[in-house]
Amino acid sequence: MSRSALAIVLAAGDGTRMKSDKTKMLHEVAGRAMAAHVVDTVARSGVNETVLVVGRDGDKVAAACAAPQKALRTFEQTERLGTAHAVLAAREAIAAGFDDLIVTYGDTPLITAETLGRARSALAEGSDVVVIGFEAGDPTGYGRLLVRDGALTAIREEKDASADERAVRLCNSGLMALNGRRALAFLDAIGNDNAKGEFYLTDVVEVALAKGGKASVVMAEPDEVLGCNNRAELAELERIWQARRRRELMLEGVTMIAPETVFLSYDTEIGPDTVIEPNVWFGPGVRIAANVTIHAFSHIEGASVASGSQVGPFARLRPGAVLHDDAKVGNFCEVKNGDIGVGAKVNHLSYIGDASIGAKANIGAGTITCNYDGVNKARTTIGDNAFIGSNSALVAPVAIGNGAYVGSGSVITTDVPDNALAIARGRQENREGRAELIRARAIKAAKQSKS
Amino acid sequence: MSRSALAIVLAAGDGTRMKSDKTKMLHEVAGRAMAAHVVDTVARSGVNETVLVVGRDGDKVAAACAAPQKALRTFEQTERLGTAHAVLAAREAIAAGFDDLIVTYGDTPLITAETLGRARSALAEGSDVVVIGFEAGDPTGYGRLLVRDGALTAIREEKDASADERAVRLCNSGLMALNGRRALAFLDAIGNDNAKGEFYLTDVVEVALAKGGKASVVMAEPDEVLGCNNRAELAELERIWQARRRRELMLEGVTMIAPETVFLSYDTEIGPDTVIEPNVWFGPGVRIAANVTIHAFSHIEGASVASGSQVGPFARLRPGAVLHDDAKVGNFCEVKNGDIGVGAKVNHLSYIGDASIGAKANIGAGTITCNYDGVNKARTTIGDNAFIGSNSALVAPVAIGNGAYVGSGSVITTDVPDNALAIARGRQENREGRAELIRARAIKAAKQSKS
Amino acid sequence: MSRSALAIVLAAGDGTRMKSDKTKMLHEVAGRAMAAHVVDTVARSGVNETVLVVGRDGDKVAAACAAPQKALRTFEQTERLGTAHAVLAAREAIAAGFDDLIVTYGDTPLITAETLGRARSALAEGSDVVVIGFEAGDPTGYGRLLVRDGALTAIREEKDASADERAVRLCNSGLMALNGRRALAFLDAIGNDNAKGEFYLTDVVEVALAKGGKASVVMAEPDEVLGCNNRAELAELERIWQARRRRELMLEGVTMIAPETVFLSYDTEIGPDTVIEPNVWFGPGVRIAANVTIHAFSHIEGASVASGSQVGPFARLRPGAVLHDDAKVGNFCEVKNGDIGVGAKVNHLSYIGDASIGAKANIGAGTITCNYDGVNKARTTIGDNAFIGSNSALVAPVAIGNGAYVGSGSVITTDVPDNALAIARGRQENREGRAELIRARAIKAAKQSKS
Repeated sequence: MSRSALAIVLAAGDGTRMKSDKTKMLHEVAGRAMAAHVVDTVARSGVNETVLVVGRDGDKVAAACAAPQKALRTFEQTERLGTAHAVLAAREAIAAGFDDLIVTYGDTPLITAETLGRARSALAEGSDVVVIGFEAGDPTGYGRLLVRDGALTAIREEKDASADERAVRLCNSGLMALNGRRALAFLDAIGNDNAKGEFYLTDVVEVALAKGGKASVVMAEPDEVLGCNNRAELAELERIWQARRRRELMLEGVTMIAPETVFLSYDTEIGPDTVIEPNVWFGPGVRIAANVTIHAFSHIEGASVASGSQVGPFARLRPGAVLHDDAKVGNFCEVKNGDIGVGAKVNHLSYIGDASIGAKANIGAGTITCNYDGVNKARTTIGDNAFIGSNSALVAPVAIGNGAYVGSGSVITTDVPDNALAIARGRQENREGRAELIRARAIKAAKQSKS
Repeated sequence: MSRSALAIVLAAGDGTRMKSDKTKMLHEVAGRAMAAHVVDTVARSGVNETVLVVGRDGDKVAAACAAPQKALRTFEQTERLGTAHAVLAAREAIAAGFDDLIVTYGDTPLITAETLGRARSALAEGSDVVVIGFEAGDPTGYGRLLVRDGALTAIREEKDASADERAVRLCNSGLMALNGRRALAFLDAIGNDNAKGEFYLTDVVEVALAKGGKASVVMAEPDEVLGCNNRAELAELERIWQARRRRELMLEGVTMIAPETVFLSYDTEIGPDTVIEPNVWFGPGVRIAANVTIHAFSHIEGASVASGSQVGPFARLRPGAVLHDDAKVGNFCEVKNGDIGVGAKVNHLSYIGDASIGAKANIGAGTITCNYDGVNKARTTIGDNAFIGSNSALVAPVAIGNGAYVGSGSVITTDVPDNALAIARGRQENREGRAELIRARAIKAAKQSKS
Repeated sequence: MSRSALAIVLAAGDGTRMKSDKTKMLHEVAGRAMAAHVVDTVARSGVNETVLVVGRDGDKVAAACAAPQKALRTFEQTERLGTAHAVLAAREAIAAGFDDLIVTYGDTPLITAETLGRARSALAEGSDVVVIGFEAGDPTGYGRLLVRDGALTAIREEKDASADERAVRLCNSGLMALNGRRALAFLDAIGNDNAKGEFYLTDVVEVALAKGGKASVVMAEPDEVLGCNNRAELAELERIWQARRRRELMLEGVTMIAPETVFLSYDTEIGPDTVIEPNVWFGPGVRIAANVTIHAFSHIEGASVASGSQVGPFARLRPGAVLHDDAKVGNFCEVKNGDIGVGAKVNHLSYIGDASIGAKANIGAGTITCNYDGVNKARTTIGDNAFIGSNSALVAPVAIGNGAYVGSGSVITTDVPDNALAIARGRQENREGRAELIRARAIKAAKQSKS
């Protein structure tokens, strides 16, 4: 598109029915604030600038939206006098003069760039106001879009509608695209002669038509224009987002045995022929290559997993976990800021934190890297082909050499040279018949405590 | 309501299609016997007395229902001669003379107090028999409620219905409210002149009308009157119960990212702005404060979690686990009968049983409280600001002082004074080149075992 | 049935929309290759011989299908010239002369033996071609089955259909049964005079009617005839399979609190009055007896669990895990190739591999059997009534006697006699005031690293 465009994201709504200490705009869908989804979508739709109109928690909302689009201007709506008033909070940006002006809502995060693109195409074809509409199963409560000969003639509120008009199922989503060159003139002409004394953006249709402008409708799927007023609706937005993204990944060649149990973040990437078993959670920042198996009950965040690797079941990969080709991290294992070498195995009950593990190393069950002394964190390095016996504690900073062998149950506090054996544990002593004594004593104690 | 009321819960049905060694009344929904849900609901609807009519496993059913309402009289239905016969097993209670008599079923656990209240209001307005009805999507098999001028004129069984009557979708749920002063007269007039020779409660309508009484219908949602004849239906009751309660919590300000994966018990309490990630199980007896994060894959039962705390992922809190403000219990950790102090952290692979942990203490990965000697359990006490090194075993009874420090891999058997360092582990010994020897020997053994 | 039957499973389709390195026939439903489901179903329907027609990865497909039916002949379809051409790849088998010939598809794994049986009954009653049809909600795109007086008169493709014919919702599934004595004559008469120049099995109806044969329709549920072209459809097949099997098990007396979160394999067996909490994964080869409790978040594969046992939450049973009566394997425990004796307990954070544990033995939290030295695996044996203290490592091969007692935190490398106490750990040393020193030093180090 060679036309210039400004997007306004209205994010001043608070959402008292969320019953939250923070504004609803900060509540998350797929691990990202709702408003940030909208900022990202308008950016992907090809606008030249996006501005936020904020209210409560404005700084936090702006910060949450900064990631998807860095240079983001923010305008504060100090009073709550209606949607047209909210848009005009960004008067300065509108006045800069763009061909297209898109108005979206921070709590309508499922709108697609494709639909916004069609709205802009309608502007390019001569419309001055393009209302994004949807076909409602039950239109009760929505403003109806009245259309004649392909042109939008009015938005009729429920209370003002005739019986015939009430039967109309084409409804107003509230999202709009306006001729950027005429937008200010339209918006400034909107009055507040209504019950609440507010300035409604909806009235822009009437104003534009009165000024000889053209209005039209572009359709969205009902899912795209769902808003969020309480946490049940938030869960519904999440559900739809997840279903969409899972389907995309499956069509790209990812196997999900039970897709409804796999939870993705906004930026999760997964390669083809990777199999995701049921019940897997992906937090932000995850990249999974092709041909990986993620077993059931895995919790993965900020991690990168290379081809041929296996994760889980019951594995947790935390930020900074990097699995190289054919690595394995198995049940009841946690990896944080740790590098698992090619073909290395961390199969059972281990904590690997601030560590790097060499190629083909084998980390025994119950191994723990002691990376924290209560104040500082330190690193553990384990060489290629090293073998760490079960139930060992590696007290960082410490280095285990290539091909070294740590005996089971050892507490390793100093470096182990390449190919050396390190043992650090007590000697075994068997005391014959003592178990009977212990039991007898315990049973006696039990009796005493009851008497 | 100033009218007195008696509720009868019919819980003698056995349920052979459950294919169970116990009566279906004991099968659970949301962690509580079905019949106990009904006893609880009628109590909340404001009745003065509730009585149970039981059959097989009567003592167990009575015990399961004792928790919600302590003083519960039980009557045994020794023979199975129909629903009216079952109600009359409680003749003594009915004869005591209440204004209202409510008849419910132990295997219809989703009936609401609100609907029962409306049925009682209908009695107060002059009805002698109030049948709780519902609109069936497909009425086939149900008795139809025939209504004229707002009055119930008959309950027509499928087999006796005309074509017109079969088209009626208003159906009989079986639940009723009766004028308590006339109930015995009605019930005693019900005959058993039918194919099975049973006394059907349904016939109370005909009897009451014949005696000049008035009958009416009060509507319930179809979900409320679902019964349970097999375990697929039991799962369906559970599904509906869970959906209801999740929605309530969400509307009160709890975030559930994927509500359909969060399983609540009948008494689960959760505060606002608490976030529940997917796949969390709440057994009975859980209280979660506001502003808590429950990460995915957490299993929580009989525990109390204070504000600012974090649980999971992969955490298990068992009965008696108490997390104070800002505490953390992380992955692969189990807490049983344990007190986790303000800001204390149990982050990885630990078992904390019969223990109390002081404020801001840090429990290293792999720490285990050894609370059991095979016969008795004993307590571990850990002071404020203590630091327990990774992979330590604390053999109870034992006390770790405030500010004390336990070296990684230690087995602590005697008390550690405040601010002391305790170490209990073997010394490390490195044997150069020995790892190669071990490998060579192992490979040789592998070859021998194959040859 | 006394009639002989041959089943042909067409498994040469590749499935480019699967976007996979392997043929779609190998993609799994319920832990078994799709094609193997079909091979199993036709075997259960009572055919005398089953043959596979394969394309890419033919050997692998044949191998995957070998388990359900051992003697399986395979024919390769070297060129892709249509479904009739595919069937004729098995000419040699057809020519052997069976009464009935069933044609199924390797990517239609939900067809039931019952439906195939009805198709064969229709052959027995005189049909020469029996098309398995289904009632489509939206028939668009499917071939319509035109029926008159109970006989199938034609299969009409969408593009050739009149408006009236398009309104028909009875559609062709592609699955068929043919008179085995006339099948070759019919198939050889099918031409390829069509846009793609392919030989379509669908044309067998026209051919058969032209030769004086009779054609009829047998109905299947729409679910039974779903195929698989991409991984979203694969997930849908899995969903339906799981729902079917869960329901069967529930009706047989298994309690599933949230059946939609329980994932079964094709061969999972579970006894009555067993309770499965939410979020349980059953891989292949699992047998669960009656009266078992499988707690939430359990991952079970190749294991056998006897009556009265408890598994989980957060337990993993791997192949060769055998739980005898009343055994317990609890949270964060893994059992592989291990025998857990009657009433024995492995309750917390343990790895039991290549081991046998005696009756009523108690395995403390954090116990690890060290079964691997980097090359070989070795066994651990634990006697009846033995008590293994927490955080112990048992270095295999090693035997712990009956009634023996291992002190917490021990590393056991040599056998422990019956009733002996074994201890293998360092002595505890308390150094007064040293914790303060450690903290001071750590804080200093932290400052230095920042400066």
